[in-house]
Amino acid sequence: MPERDLQYLAELAAQLRVDSVRAAAAAGSGHPTSSMSAADLMAVLFACHLRYDFKDPGNPANDHLIFSKGHASPLLYSLYKAAGIIDDEELLSFRKRGSRLEGHPTPRLPWVDVATGSLGQGLPVGVGVAMAGRLERLPYRVWVLCGDSELAEGSIWEAAEHAGDEGLANVTAIVDVNRLGQRGPTRHGWDTGAYARRFGAFGWHTIEIDGHDPGQIDFALGDACNQRRRPTVILAKTRKGEGVVEVENREGAHGKALKDPGKAVQELGGPRDVRVVVREPDAAPAPHRFDSGRLELPAYKVGDSVATRTAYGEALKALGAARGDVVALDGEVADSTKTETFGAAFPERFFEMYIAEQQMVAAAVGLQVRGWKPYAATFAAFLTRAHDFIRMAAVSRASIRLVGSHAGVAIGEDGPSQMGLEDLAMLRTLYGSTVLYPCDANQTAALVAEMADVDGVSYLRTTRGSTPVIYEPGERFPVGGSRVLRHSPGDRATIVAAGVTVHEALAAAEELAGAGVPVGVIDLYSVKPVDAAALTEAATTTGNLITVEDHRLEGGLGDAVMDAVSELGPRVIKLGVAGLPGSATPEEQLADARIDRHAIAAAVKRLL
Amino acid sequence: MPERDLQYLAELAAQLRVDSVRAAAAAGSGHPTSSMSAADLMAVLFACHLRYDFKDPGNPANDHLIFSKGHASPLLYSLYKAAGIIDDEELLSFRKRGSRLEGHPTPRLPWVDVATGSLGQGLPVGVGVAMAGRLERLPYRVWVLCGDSELAEGSIWEAAEHAGDEGLANVTAIVDVNRLGQRGPTRHGWDTGAYARRFGAFGWHTIEIDGHDPGQIDFALGDACNQRRRPTVILAKTRKGEGVVEVENREGAHGKALKDPGKAVQELGGPRDVRVVVREPDAAPAPHRFDSGRLELPAYKVGDSVATRTAYGEALKALGAARGDVVALDGEVADSTKTETFGAAFPERFFEMYIAEQQMVAAAVGLQVRGWKPYAATFAAFLTRAHDFIRMAAVSRASIRLVGSHAGVAIGEDGPSQMGLEDLAMLRTLYGSTVLYPCDANQTAALVAEMADVDGVSYLRTTRGSTPVIYEPGERFPVGGSRVLRHSPGDRATIVAAGVTVHEALAAAEELAGAGVPVGVIDLYSVKPVDAAALTEAATTTGNLITVEDHRLEGGLGDAVMDAVSELGPRVIKLGVAGLPGSATPEEQLADARIDRHAIAAAVKRLL
Repeated sequence: MPERDLQYLAELAAQLRVDSVRAAAAAGSGHPTSSMSAADLMAVLFACHLRYDFKDPGNPANDHLIFSKGHASPLLYSLYKAAGIIDDEELLSFRKRGSRLEGHPTPRLPWVDVATGSLGQGLPVGVGVAMAGRLERLPYRVWVLCGDSELAEGSIWEAAEHAGDEGLANVTAIVDVNRLGQRGPTRHGWDTGAYARRFGAFGWHTIEIDGHDPGQIDFALGDACNQRRRPTVILAKTRKGEGVVEVENREGAHGKALKDPGKAVQELGGPRDVRVVVREPDAAPAPHRFDSGRLELPAYKVGDSVATRTAYGEALKALGAARGDVVALDGEVADSTKTETFGAAFPERFFEMYIAEQQMVAAAVGLQVRGWKPYAATFAAFLTRAHDFIRMAAVSRASIRLVGSHAGVAIGEDGPSQMGLEDLAMLRTLYGSTVLYPCDANQTAALVAEMADVDGVSYLRTTRGSTPVIYEPGERFPVGGSRVLRHSPGDRATIVAAGVTVHEALAAAEELAGAGVPVGVIDLYSVKPVDAAALTEAATTTGNLITVEDHRLEGGLGDAVMDAVSELGPRVIKLGVAGLPGSATPEEQLADARIDRHAIAAAVKRLL
Repeated sequence: MPERDLQYLAELAAQLRVDSVRAAAAAGSGHPTSSMSAADLMAVLFACHLRYDFKDPGNPANDHLIFSKGHASPLLYSLYKAAGIIDDEELLSFRKRGSRLEGHPTPRLPWVDVATGSLGQGLPVGVGVAMAGRLERLPYRVWVLCGDSELAEGSIWEAAEHAGDEGLANVTAIVDVNRLGQRGPTRHGWDTGAYARRFGAFGWHTIEIDGHDPGQIDFALGDACNQRRRPTVILAKTRKGEGVVEVENREGAHGKALKDPGKAVQELGGPRDVRVVVREPDAAPAPHRFDSGRLELPAYKVGDSVATRTAYGEALKALGAARGDVVALDGEVADSTKTETFGAAFPERFFEMYIAEQQMVAAAVGLQVRGWKPYAATFAAFLTRAHDFIRMAAVSRASIRLVGSHAGVAIGEDGPSQMGLEDLAMLRTLYGSTVLYPCDANQTAALVAEMADVDGVSYLRTTRGSTPVIYEPGERFPVGGSRVLRHSPGDRATIVAAGVTVHEALAAAEELAGAGVPVGVIDLYSVKPVDAAALTEAATTTGNLITVEDHRLEGGLGDAVMDAVSELGPRVIKLGVAGLPGSATPEEQLADARIDRHAIAAAVKRLL
């Protein structure tokens, strides 16, 4: 086979280095040296082992390649040029305004599954794609190029644990052990054995090679393909900046264009026009899909008391019966979040991720790469553990659904460590996110179904305790909507609430009405996007808004309301959790945080 | 020694179980079964190995005990009772409003260093306390009780890597391998060898024991004390709910009071009044402290162009010379954040944490337990990786200083993965936090010094590129203040900005003044707390505010301003980053995000 010609592979790798240097030189920035260390690894992968139909990136049989070390983007783009899918002109648009070739890869390029650049994320996401492959019974492989520095991230070991324990033999990590991080030497330098011991302990098949020797690389990649029970990590000893004396294996050469790119290109043997033909995958069976049926959401009787987390579990089960593409993940608290209701009905589509929230979110991102509709749940408080993964999911424009239970002080006795009080702020701030916060069981069920077709990162916030059912089964609650629960022409103020505080607001309004002060109540179940029209109407008619939320005062529902009406200039009082709660009953907590009915009524009186 | 009497140790352990059951019964909730599995481990620790002066929790020679499995709080409180520092009445106040004995331990108790309850955090924080011990040359030991479930958290392996590689022999992890997580069996069940292989690969000394055998426990704890070069992990096989048939080693018994506590107490042999005498530490030398001197902050010339990140590094170096208690940590980007300036001057007080942001923040929390003043820096974007640790630091009322560099779209070509656009929201939302965002080098230097004595979590946001120096050296910038940079009685609107947008706002104001539209400019360098008085004055005099920030529209400076003036009802236009940026130059990015001078001027015109 010509692609196994060592001279050809060396020429291809040299071209990848040349083009990495040229792309960074044209940009005046970027990471040529981190690209050069991995050039041989990727040359052999593309020429000999990757199975990918570049004409049809959606081909289900395609392998997946993730640059976990996203800063090596010049190498990735140089590979695309060698594969003939971008031209030299586009290569040299690297990092320029409007170019698809961004500083770090994003899915603006059709061959990129997910955005990378926050280290330690590509491997966990790759594990998610591998989980999808097993679920849909397709033989594709997932190749992840990692840096050695990023092995310091705990998320790498969450991925190692999941893939090792599940025996995901379809994922291969290729670690470019170039010894040098951004600031200086890594912890373990060229001691590939240190990494091998760690991955080995987590159940991986490990191979240590010279990452500049095409023969060894070819053997290792083939060996990975032959594994049937264990994921493989290839620990490749390399030199950063390989091939150019100015930067080769030198500190201080990270993340910069070369000083003399012309000389470097010459030293590398000059520009070439080597092409690489990536083999298309063999025809694969159609991806396995699960049965779909009619959606019959659970129905709850008005006046009954049901926790929204319970409704989440039951609605997700109903959705799972209706849609074969729905899958669920949980962080070892499925009995609390109620994901277990789905898990019991659809064990094959339920993933226990144990207490590893970063890997949970990464797995969701990986699953949606292949078209699955993941719902991932844990306590709202513990989603903060995965903040950077959720942030990168937004940059990837990934469609994942997150569910945070046990929100707010209303959990009661467990205390502040378990209270999700920052989740609305975290989720609202993200690009393109959707934030939903239902107050009753029927509304929850409707929103769970609604989320299935929401693009981007969407979030459902649920409550531990039971709340009264106030909506009829079957009512619709579109994203971006709200419900006016109480309104009269004489309203002197409008209370805007969501979740548990809706019920407090209704009670406060009742109390105020008895005292001759009519006020309206809006259920703002869609915290992002907000129903600006309804809020504008309230702001212009009563001119007085009181927002109340079981969340900190910053970044949540109150800010969403103010944002919607800021240019109108109504008077707004925000009620939320200002202090640091301790242990107490749910009722005591709401009172202590001054977000219960009495505090709301007092705030209305103060405003008027 | 009487404390090594096996009968006594068994009686003490039985009492700890009894009291755990009773405390949870009184509360009607809590985690008795997770307490019962670890009772023998802690009985032997208290009776034979812990060195702690309960009369003087501040004694520098005291050992440190961290319940990483914070849900086993009934066991901790039962130990306090056995040690005679709380009485039975207080024990039974567990989880009640106003009680110090919260659902999960917090430093409201003088013997608790840090709040736990978010799993996987106690060990990383314990590693930080162990780092402090080495720094201050004290022989205390750090004991961390871990659950087996929490070993799934990546943060545990960041801690394992740091402690193993640094050879922190003064830290011991005691893992209560009770086989059962919240929802069901853990991944590895009672396979303590699986954990031993992992910890061993990370360089730890490992011991596998029967966690209900006092003799084995005593040996293991003593063995840990004898280690000189490696941290120790004791993997103790235990039974959850040990001693009570109703719950022993059974699924579904997690996190609940027992159904029949009276019967359980009887089964455990009834209440006892066993006391444990914890040995006080030997007199230790005074903690090592570094020299302090006069503070001479760097001075920058007005009109020069200096990056605030550069000023951070230089100011921190100056502060380090003035104060021996200042230490610095960095996430392997010290050449970018400029922590390297401090690191070069004070290598002993600089900690390279590699790319492990969770461990970096945890180490800062651990260091401040012993009175050090840690500054921990990485890119603003990557602080999101440690969100849950920062959240728990706030619950711990820990005083840590975080620095996020490369904030906003102003970084330019690197693209969205590297842009801190959610950091202000994340940090503002936390309990008791302080958020600072300087616009020039002298202001940065002043704020770096100011932060040293700020309580709680404080945050400094710095910028990659250079900005003009506009303040004289030596000017003061108190937390909670602001600066009116431009003001005239005829101002028709006020622009509120911070960081890079201050300079854009000044340019816009100049442009508008030329067009006959006078506007004021406020530098809101203290984003939390905000200068409500100055904003109120602006809101009431001009009635028109334009906020502009290099951050997402949600949760940042604009929301802080609206919050301060919401009850006054001014008209507010918020400018911030709404879309998803790609690669471009810093100037192009500011223009594309519509937060540059032209966008600001256009917004003013629209508002008027």
